[in-house]
Amino acid sequence: MRNLLVDMDGVLLDIYHQFLKFEERETGSRQGSEALKGKLELEAFPDGVRYLNTPGFFREAPPMEGSVSGLKMLDNKYHVLVVSLATEYPGTIPEKIEWLNRNFPFLSWKQMVFCGDKSMIRGDILVDDHAKNLDHFDGERILYTQPHNINYTPRRGQRVNCWDELVSLL
Amino acid sequence: MRNLLVDMDGVLLDIYHQFLKFEERETGSRQGSEALKGKLELEAFPDGVRYLNTPGFFREAPPMEGSVSGLKMLDNKYHVLVVSLATEYPGTIPEKIEWLNRNFPFLSWKQMVFCGDKSMIRGDILVDDHAKNLDHFDGERILYTQPHNINYTPRRGQRVNCWDELVSLL
Repeated sequence: MRNLLVDMDGVLLDIYHQFLKFEERETGSRQGSEALKGKLELEAFPDGVRYLNTPGFFREAPPMEGSVSGLKMLDNKYHVLVVSLATEYPGTIPEKIEWLNRNFPFLSWKQMVFCGDKSMIRGDILVDDHAKNLDHFDGERILYTQPHNINYTPRRGQRVNCWDELVSLL
Repeated sequence: MRNLLVDMDGVLLDIYHQFLKFEERETGSRQGSEALKGKLELEAFPDGVRYLNTPGFFREAPPMEGSVSGLKMLDNKYHVLVVSLATEYPGTIPEKIEWLNRNFPFLSWKQMVFCGDKSMIRGDILVDDHAKNLDHFDGERILYTQPHNINYTPRRGQRVNCWDELVSLL
């Protein structure tokens, strides 16, 4: 069985939904989707680090559309590991695990990795929305579309725009 | 630079010190070192899981003797990653990161991995006190002596009894 590494924020968890919600709650206004395109998350949301370190940010996040049923299918076909860059923000990790346990109950704690450098994880395939993670990965690379990567052309690998496309591809 | 994976509990952090302290605090009596030999930690400390999930268990733990200066030397010679099985007990992870930041300030968050299966981490060398982690590792294996592994004969690799021995070996 091949090892499939799946990123959490922006692939399983709808992090834009949370950034937009937290910003709107604080400022009273909501950015349109055009304003987000091509900007890194912390360019689009200058207070993003503070938002994601606020209790509840991850706990209350919705899963990406199609991710629960999609990952369940892939979990039968691959050895799935959820790999999340998270050690920079220690307080977020318990919420992230709680969120995975609640939304993806078929995953075990043995299938979760919280680290600071994804290139150290063994994998045959990596699904991620961040070019910085994919560029150092020597297996098969799949870029998951999010507003920040819309103008990025992967040097190698493929782009998918939704979970249906991802499941069809794999 | 080769990747050196270093276990946390029982290699960097003196977990027996904490188990003994928590047990004594609760029961009023302290096990002698002979009673611990050859028993897995949770055989020796039946309430060990409850202890380690108690706030403060990791925060207040002392580093293993020689581990701070030893790891600092090794960090100049290897690409060091601290790898800890921890996703089963999510609440422990922020304390573990805080503890690493305080006691090993030369390590960055990029050098920390909290996972449920160490065989998924890329490494050339693994230092660990648990046979279950070493047995599935395909690089160089170094068993760090702790009471629970005293009767274990590694199928492959070497045993070290203290940080001085480890630094001399590497």
